[in-house]
Amino acid sequence: MASHGKKSEEEAAITEAPNTSISTIVIIVAMQTEALPLVNRFQLTEDLDSVFPKGVPWVRYRGVYKDLNINLIWPGKDSILGVDSVGTISASLVTYASIQALKPDLIINAGTAGAFKAKGAVIGDVFLAADCAFHDRRIPIPVFDMYGVGLRQAHSTPNLVKELNLKVGKLSTGDSLDMSPHDESSITANDATVKDMEGAAVAYVADLLKVPAIFVKAVTDIVDGEKPTAEEFLQNLAAVTAALDNTVTQIIDFISGKCISEL
Amino acid sequence: MASHGKKSEEEAAITEAPNTSISTIVIIVAMQTEALPLVNRFQLTEDLDSVFPKGVPWVRYRGVYKDLNINLIWPGKDSILGVDSVGTISASLVTYASIQALKPDLIINAGTAGAFKAKGAVIGDVFLAADCAFHDRRIPIPVFDMYGVGLRQAHSTPNLVKELNLKVGKLSTGDSLDMSPHDESSITANDATVKDMEGAAVAYVADLLKVPAIFVKAVTDIVDGEKPTAEEFLQNLAAVTAALDNTVTQIIDFISGKCISEL
Repeated sequence: MASHGKKSEEEAAITEAPNTSISTIVIIVAMQTEALPLVNRFQLTEDLDSVFPKGVPWVRYRGVYKDLNINLIWPGKDSILGVDSVGTISASLVTYASIQALKPDLIINAGTAGAFKAKGAVIGDVFLAADCAFHDRRIPIPVFDMYGVGLRQAHSTPNLVKELNLKVGKLSTGDSLDMSPHDESSITANDATVKDMEGAAVAYVADLLKVPAIFVKAVTDIVDGEKPTAEEFLQNLAAVTAALDNTVTQIIDFISGKCISEL
Repeated sequence: MASHGKKSEEEAAITEAPNTSISTIVIIVAMQTEALPLVNRFQLTEDLDSVFPKGVPWVRYRGVYKDLNINLIWPGKDSILGVDSVGTISASLVTYASIQALKPDLIINAGTAGAFKAKGAVIGDVFLAADCAFHDRRIPIPVFDMYGVGLRQAHSTPNLVKELNLKVGKLSTGDSLDMSPHDESSITANDATVKDMEGAAVAYVADLLKVPAIFVKAVTDIVDGEKPTAEEFLQNLAAVTAALDNTVTQIIDFISGKCISEL
């Protein structure tokens, strides 16, 4: 009995320690084309008994991979228009609802993005974001201006970056696929290498609810190149998604068995 | 017993009828300066046992006014910067969380806004929005372009408009207080009279969860006027808030005892 009691105390200590291994991961992916290769790779299945409210198009794919509870959340197709629910509002809503329902230890926002050749990016590169900020929330009133930019650090992952030899750059987020001159000035002010439509929104909600988050972005188009963004994006989407898929898998393999502070 | 049984059936029929009176209202207000006069007017008290998760700055003021359960939700001050959590992301999150927690019969998004003198607006006007759309979500891919604009009708309120003699106009929403040339083109395409930073986001979430929503916007600045928006906005904020306060009170008085289809 004494021996059993001692073991229980040890078990309790392990459970309560802050350095327990990561157990539950939420991967937020905006587009079906980006999501499905990961669903297949990790052999996830769609959760038909949804943790989300009736009526929302949000989809949860779940499964266990290397002792990790993997939840891939895709905001789904717009119920009227049938296109992926991209952008900051859907991303912030599914991040919020996923944290409430699933209490993840870590959030991974994975997706495709634009990037700048002036910052050394090429098509097919996969970046880990050092930090995230918005480039389309201009509020020229003191302090509100900083609120609009909404700069947030990604969870620090020095070991992950070193082990996988990942490129690291700053991420700038806005709800437009194109880039207006005003957006460009803000992206320059944000010193961004990568431009997406969700990252800073996921970062905002994750920070609000104190869940560590990282951002994995694969480059589908060169923003400061010759080709129009929409055309280049659609051309490269499928191929670049394969690169994204590989990197996310390497990241999940690295995470397995580690605690947050070891990343 | 037969009599009792019959009464129960009648009661059940009344409960299930679609035309029951409006009982619970959620008022979404982005700024404290806009919120406090309404809190005082309806004698609401802050809900200290929050229905929202730990850590979020969102504030619920509640009370009963003319048999209506009034909930005024203010997204609160940014916990780091101390400014009001304005804009579409906070608005969509509090709309979502309020609907989940409070199951309102009606959402009222009330606040200050810019407006166009070319459309007949003057400082202090209070508009009811006919519909809401975004002007800063440009996605130049077929169908995605319409998703970005995100046009949604406000709940139709012909009797309310007639009774209170309200001005009606289209509302265009974006996360910037200023107006870039790209934003201006989109606002023109949206045929908007009023420009705000939350409306279309509240409309999106209300539509997603099938809750009727109306939008009451008081004009603090003339977008196509001479004065810089930020300066004019801050100058008129307090005075125009009084006009907003009066109109929202008239609207609540009108709503009292009516069902959704009578508005």
